[in-house]
Amino acid sequence: MALVVTNIRRAPQEHAAECAALGVATLHEAQGRKGLFAPRLRPIYRPVSVAGTAVTCEVAPGDNWMIHVAVEQCRAGDILVVTPTAPCTDGYFGDLLATSLQARGVVALVIDAGVRDIATLTKMRFPVWSAAVCAQGTVKETLGNVNTPITCAGARVNPGDMIVADDDGVAVIAKDEVAGVLEQARTRVANEAEKRDRLAAGELGLDMYGMRGRLAEKGLKYVEAEE
Amino acid sequence: MALVVTNIRRAPQEHAAECAALGVATLHEAQGRKGLFAPRLRPIYRPVSVAGTAVTCEVAPGDNWMIHVAVEQCRAGDILVVTPTAPCTDGYFGDLLATSLQARGVVALVIDAGVRDIATLTKMRFPVWSAAVCAQGTVKETLGNVNTPITCAGARVNPGDMIVADDDGVAVIAKDEVAGVLEQARTRVANEAEKRDRLAAGELGLDMYGMRGRLAEKGLKYVEAEE
Amino acid sequence: MALVVTNIRRAPQEHAAECAALGVATLHEAQGRKGLFAPRLRPIYRPVSVAGTAVTCEVAPGDNWMIHVAVEQCRAGDILVVTPTAPCTDGYFGDLLATSLQARGVVALVIDAGVRDIATLTKMRFPVWSAAVCAQGTVKETLGNVNTPITCAGARVNPGDMIVADDDGVAVIAKDEVAGVLEQARTRVANEAEKRDRLAAGELGLDMYGMRGRLAEKGLKYVEAEE
Amino acid sequence: MALVVTNIRRAPQEHAAECAALGVATLHEAQGRKGLFAPRLRPIYRPVSVAGTAVTCEVAPGDNWMIHVAVEQCRAGDILVVTPTAPCTDGYFGDLLATSLQARGVVALVIDAGVRDIATLTKMRFPVWSAAVCAQGTVKETLGNVNTPITCAGARVNPGDMIVADDDGVAVIAKDEVAGVLEQARTRVANEAEKRDRLAAGELGLDMYGMRGRLAEKGLKYVEAEE
Amino acid sequence: MALVVTNIRRAPQEHAAECAALGVATLHEAQGRKGLFAPRLRPIYRPVSVAGTAVTCEVAPGDNWMIHVAVEQCRAGDILVVTPTAPCTDGYFGDLLATSLQARGVVALVIDAGVRDIATLTKMRFPVWSAAVCAQGTVKETLGNVNTPITCAGARVNPGDMIVADDDGVAVIAKDEVAGVLEQARTRVANEAEKRDRLAAGELGLDMYGMRGRLAEKGLKYVEAEE
Amino acid sequence: MALVVTNIRRAPQEHAAECAALGVATLHEAQGRKGLFAPRLRPIYRPVSVAGTAVTCEVAPGDNWMIHVAVEQCRAGDILVVTPTAPCTDGYFGDLLATSLQARGVVALVIDAGVRDIATLTKMRFPVWSAAVCAQGTVKETLGNVNTPITCAGARVNPGDMIVADDDGVAVIAKDEVAGVLEQARTRVANEAEKRDRLAAGELGLDMYGMRGRLAEKGLKYVEAEE
Repeated sequence: MALVVTNIRRAPQEHAAECAALGVATLHEAQGRKGLFAPRLRPIYRPVSVAGTAVTCEVAPGDNWMIHVAVEQCRAGDILVVTPTAPCTDGYFGDLLATSLQARGVVALVIDAGVRDIATLTKMRFPVWSAAVCAQGTVKETLGNVNTPITCAGARVNPGDMIVADDDGVAVIAKDEVAGVLEQARTRVANEAEKRDRLAAGELGLDMYGMRGRLAEKGLKYVEAEE
Repeated sequence: MALVVTNIRRAPQEHAAECAALGVATLHEAQGRKGLFAPRLRPIYRPVSVAGTAVTCEVAPGDNWMIHVAVEQCRAGDILVVTPTAPCTDGYFGDLLATSLQARGVVALVIDAGVRDIATLTKMRFPVWSAAVCAQGTVKETLGNVNTPITCAGARVNPGDMIVADDDGVAVIAKDEVAGVLEQARTRVANEAEKRDRLAAGELGLDMYGMRGRLAEKGLKYVEAEE
Repeated sequence: MALVVTNIRRAPQEHAAECAALGVATLHEAQGRKGLFAPRLRPIYRPVSVAGTAVTCEVAPGDNWMIHVAVEQCRAGDILVVTPTAPCTDGYFGDLLATSLQARGVVALVIDAGVRDIATLTKMRFPVWSAAVCAQGTVKETLGNVNTPITCAGARVNPGDMIVADDDGVAVIAKDEVAGVLEQARTRVANEAEKRDRLAAGELGLDMYGMRGRLAEKGLKYVEAEE
Repeated sequence: MALVVTNIRRAPQEHAAECAALGVATLHEAQGRKGLFAPRLRPIYRPVSVAGTAVTCEVAPGDNWMIHVAVEQCRAGDILVVTPTAPCTDGYFGDLLATSLQARGVVALVIDAGVRDIATLTKMRFPVWSAAVCAQGTVKETLGNVNTPITCAGARVNPGDMIVADDDGVAVIAKDEVAGVLEQARTRVANEAEKRDRLAAGELGLDMYGMRGRLAEKGLKYVEAEE
Repeated sequence: MALVVTNIRRAPQEHAAECAALGVATLHEAQGRKGLFAPRLRPIYRPVSVAGTAVTCEVAPGDNWMIHVAVEQCRAGDILVVTPTAPCTDGYFGDLLATSLQARGVVALVIDAGVRDIATLTKMRFPVWSAAVCAQGTVKETLGNVNTPITCAGARVNPGDMIVADDDGVAVIAKDEVAGVLEQARTRVANEAEKRDRLAAGELGLDMYGMRGRLAEKGLKYVEAEE
Repeated sequence: MALVVTNIRRAPQEHAAECAALGVATLHEAQGRKGLFAPRLRPIYRPVSVAGTAVTCEVAPGDNWMIHVAVEQCRAGDILVVTPTAPCTDGYFGDLLATSLQARGVVALVIDAGVRDIATLTKMRFPVWSAAVCAQGTVKETLGNVNTPITCAGARVNPGDMIVADDDGVAVIAKDEVAGVLEQARTRVANEAEKRDRLAAGELGLDMYGMRGRLAEKGLKYVEAEE
């Protein structure tokens, strides 16, 4: 049942730079608050912001064999997304694999498990979002899958989907929805710029968003401190 | 039952700078080891050290509506302290709310939940202590309370209390105890400066603190390694 | 039953610098993937890399008395390794104890509990690996042991063993195995340098490690994406 | 600073039986969803349901000395509520202390730490809600407080408050609010009995609670499955 | 974006009884080790074993409104599967909702959040698998989805899929794969019965499974204890 | 490096029954509060109490191959103690392995990982202490060790040591210390019987243990409630 799916269709690479610039929070909102990875995935250095197309990889606990297989399926602009079939904090990935991925133009690793050599990875500026930092080595004994649909840190990822990752975490956008989500996001950002100026000038969100009526209607009471 | 208490009495603002300089560990000791928030609250950047008067805010899980209400109750020198009524890692707070708070002179946010936009918050130098970093958006549907007594990360906070936060975590000092605690803390610090010099010169704590007698009395034995 | 063992035999100090340079991941691999501390131990600042000989210290929960006793047993080149007899996140260690250790030439602290004053410790460049950062003070009431064999964060440590700690975590090498492990590690590193060059040049791990045959034999299938 | 407060005022004992019968979920709702302890507190056997007046006890981590002090302050109908000053899973309490409490008519223990001898406690029918089961022994070295206000598992408890505990967890009712909360709870229960019958007869909550209009207004759409 | 999908196609109900009898471990193996929910979901009473067709429900944190909506979509033989959009331990579900579900012939609830009234649910023999037991009440303010594809405790569930739950946890079988998986499972069980007899008679798995050769080939060494 | 050590020396079997009767808490105390496993190990059914000699087994994450190897090294009166080289909640052990162990007279399994088939194991009365219940299957690809010294859930276990496990958890007694520890434990138990009678008669621990003087000396104050 171990499969490697080749020649997957990818989200349009030309959208990656804009996705990275917009960031996880904005894009997650723009697509209706879906596609977020669990917050246990944290970047090994900050600040950082990338986007790229997903090559997915499902590995056995404590076994990084399939990452080696996945490397061959990666190409420039990809992000490798790795999920173990059972929770594991072992160090699946280090500087040699990063060197190999960087040689192919891969822009990041997202893994719901551990990584190691993070001092070197940081020096290489190869960004990683992981659930743990751990030097524990892994074996190469059990097969898994590459480029099949996976669930990683609670998010469903199909191969070729757009992955966005920054200081706030990681999100996925379905490959055929990227253009639409970007459009929503641009509107949102334009909108926010004006709001930011008004808030910076001292206007209250209560007024700017017109919240007072609905708060009163729900029963919010204001009372003077008694003390 | 949703209340906003206005015109709360605050701890004296003139003590804030000294509190920030003394820091959490020293002040927590000086007031008899009480008032500490659980260590799950961590700063989004380091080093950082602030102090300010608490505006409290109790929110529903996944709902940041009351933070907007709380902003209006904040003034220069305050720290907004937010606690959800049930554990939640959602991103309640981002750069727009930070802009609004900064416009009012608020010096920090302490929240037993998640925050987002931390790259921007870091650039703005708006310090946040949170239980998680998470891009997950929140709704505005359920009322809560502003400036009522709360428990946040295990610490009891009354509105107007002094909040101190630095790399070591967060602590609260009751508003009427700040002056007394500061006095204790100054003595402690003076005391420590001299101790630091002696320790740096090689004197042992065992001797400086006179511990040897009590250790022997309790039964401590010294034996040569056999190997 | 509280013991302080004096004049312990230590791993050869002359190996410490090389151990620090090789790092946790490499040495852990070189000694057959044993001796790793659990990944909950994290450094208070990064990048950092040290090695030194273990002085062990077993403390009661919430009680740092024995750390004061352990200081006297430390000498230049040591790393103090502290484990509580029950899980505890209290701040056992701060800048005064660090001053005392630094005065004796101790190079680091490893503790499966909490530390505080981390801003000062960072300024002092005194590295600490801990399970928590927490300002909570501790008492001095209960005896424990110094330089007896301990289990710290899941790793067995005998006094005098070599401790290696860096951004990836902490590992222990038995004192009589350091020379042998270093030899293995040097070979490994030499080996990796060549591999790194080949990978950087675009060669695949699949080919370099000759994995294709065994993958096929185990049943790995390649299929074209259908979409 | 270690205090034992004697002759505390207690909530009326005559309400305890009704509180136990109504249970945690109902009373928590009846008092506006406050006063709940964190769900990490679980009963050592089930089913179980008790209520009683709080004797509070604050202990050092790994130190049960103050529980012995607290026993003397307990009388018939009390529940002993113990909180450590820092998180700890040690076994603070076993069958000897339970024997002593049972001899005084104490009806339960609530502790945000560990207990042991749970087989014997179960045979004695002495109910305990704890954060852990752990045989680890504790020392008797450090003072704490009895019958001062505490925070236990996130809930604020004043001595003499009514504690209710059952299979669902633990809640506290302020001692002067018990009668009022009970009145609310009785109405709620009467109300629920009728609802239960209607639901059992097949009526939908959507209709019984009149939810359809507000759902539609908020934008809920019904669509046929396409598949 | 809040949707209720009606008239979903379901896995064949006639397979439910056999699925419940075979159990989670066997079926999970029979379908190639996929479809398992994370082990944080535990049954409120044991022993218990059920199977039924999934009605899915996505709820906001701390908000059980959509469960009321989902009830109407349930029919005899269904299992309601609820997932919050962000982690939450609140008590979303109690005896009134269970009464309503039982009236419709629903056989169980699976929820990656909290439940309450578990003493009553146990008496009603309405089985629940949940991530927590917690009396915390929820609100009815935010919409969600019913019968859309969800991820619950890490498992992907499509509406109408077969859910199997017992003392070991919860698993999902895709609705069109149930018959095939059952066939695999029957073979497996038949197979195991014979193995169980041989193992009970003292035959070693090492011999029965013919493992000795491969173990030796991989390098396993047997040595006499030296002591 | 994968080893199976045969013909290990075991603690005297004739002490097992008395160890089981005395239980974990008493024996842990009697041997100076050492040897306790972390409280994450819980029994799959209660009440239960066993003791036996350790056969140790170190396994790779997600791989139960070495358990099959360990079975052959087990004999009547043994307890199999399994630890993964990295944290793992997979279901390493089920009813077939239990059948095999029971056929050899093995009295229990202790595992710092997951188990499955717990309904059947409970019916078979084969006791298991585990860190998780999880149906996730494991592979048979990677070697490990049998009867080498291990650390399991924080406790150091040498092959042949006495393992004691009951409702309170698991403890280990070094094989050459069992007789001495039992003697200590018997004295302790005799002592406790008399204490229990006095406590049941209403005598206070404060008086029975003569604590009042030392409490006063440390500064404990009694004050009347002001309210």
